[in-house]
Amino acid sequence: MRRLRVFESISIDGYFCDAHGDMQWAHAGADDPEFISWVGGNASGGGELLFGRVTYDHMRAWWTTLQAAAAMPVVAKGMNAATKWVASRSLQGAGGLDWSGARLLDGDAVAAVRALKQSGGPGITLLGSGSLAAQLGAAGLVDEYQLVIVPVALGGGRTIFSGERKLALQHSRTFKNGRVVVTYAA
Amino acid sequence: MRRLRVFESISIDGYFCDAHGDMQWAHAGADDPEFISWVGGNASGGGELLFGRVTYDHMRAWWTTLQAAAAMPVVAKGMNAATKWVASRSLQGAGGLDWSGARLLDGDAVAAVRALKQSGGPGITLLGSGSLAAQLGAAGLVDEYQLVIVPVALGGGRTIFSGERKLALQHSRTFKNGRVVVTYAA
Repeated sequence: MRRLRVFESISIDGYFCDAHGDMQWAHAGADDPEFISWVGGNASGGGELLFGRVTYDHMRAWWTTLQAAAAMPVVAKGMNAATKWVASRSLQGAGGLDWSGARLLDGDAVAAVRALKQSGGPGITLLGSGSLAAQLGAAGLVDEYQLVIVPVALGGGRTIFSGERKLALQHSRTFKNGRVVVTYAA
Repeated sequence: MRRLRVFESISIDGYFCDAHGDMQWAHAGADDPEFISWVGGNASGGGELLFGRVTYDHMRAWWTTLQAAAAMPVVAKGMNAATKWVASRSLQGAGGLDWSGARLLDGDAVAAVRALKQSGGPGITLLGSGSLAAQLGAAGLVDEYQLVIVPVALGGGRTIFSGERKLALQHSRTFKNGRVVVTYAA
């Protein structure tokens, strides 16, 4: 069984996006060199990636640019080279996936990810895609949560958890940009 | 101007109580000796305390027992000796405050705490009392948030923040019981 890690930026009050769906707050201060280096190391682990369709569109729009390659070369290289699974009912066929390494998971996302985990291969990291993270967590398919706590309170928004669940802290790390990364086993 | 610190246990998804108002989840694993020692040091700083009425009732019911004195002697001594301000419209007069050092803040809580901060004296720490924390935060009266992130996701509940606000991480510390304490300046 492949392991599935959810990697998510959240606010101090636990939201992955604000009440309007905005995630711009998560980018402030993300240009800290030590933080970028850590993200780069994290992104070059050789695993596969998983997105919902909205996050896929945002990721493709950014990581395929020259600006991204200049700003974060290690991460950009990893993102463009990696196998990227995209859970979507609206993108049918390869025509919708114009990014190298992108592969469609169509139909029911929970069933598709369960089958993907049961197939052979490396670990899978879900980036962003908070709605998909919530669905997969509720279905018991998430093995690890790696959460970047951004020093912003939002006052409202959407969360990746549904229902009460104890987790086990594995690791934490603090960056000069005020982010605290906490890793929990589910 | 006295400084006001909010000290709160929150879930990974940012709630101080679950959807039913329950806070029992915050106690699991709290018997870690290193954590107890830290709480003790934190509680013996010579400051004054602030509660809402519900938290006051819970605190008084526990910290005045022999069990509390045996389980956490340093904290119990500090809690019983400290000046404890209680924001309440329903407790009128000293008759309702049957705990040594407890003093009533009646009338509007925000106005009362603003006046308290402007009076001379040591720093003030609000413990628990999530509704009061939210009111005071919205009024700009909170100077510092010290949050104990308990390794539990709740999936719903109430939060101490309203509206978007950037905070500055001052410090973080991780305990073997899976709690991560993060301190932010407001």
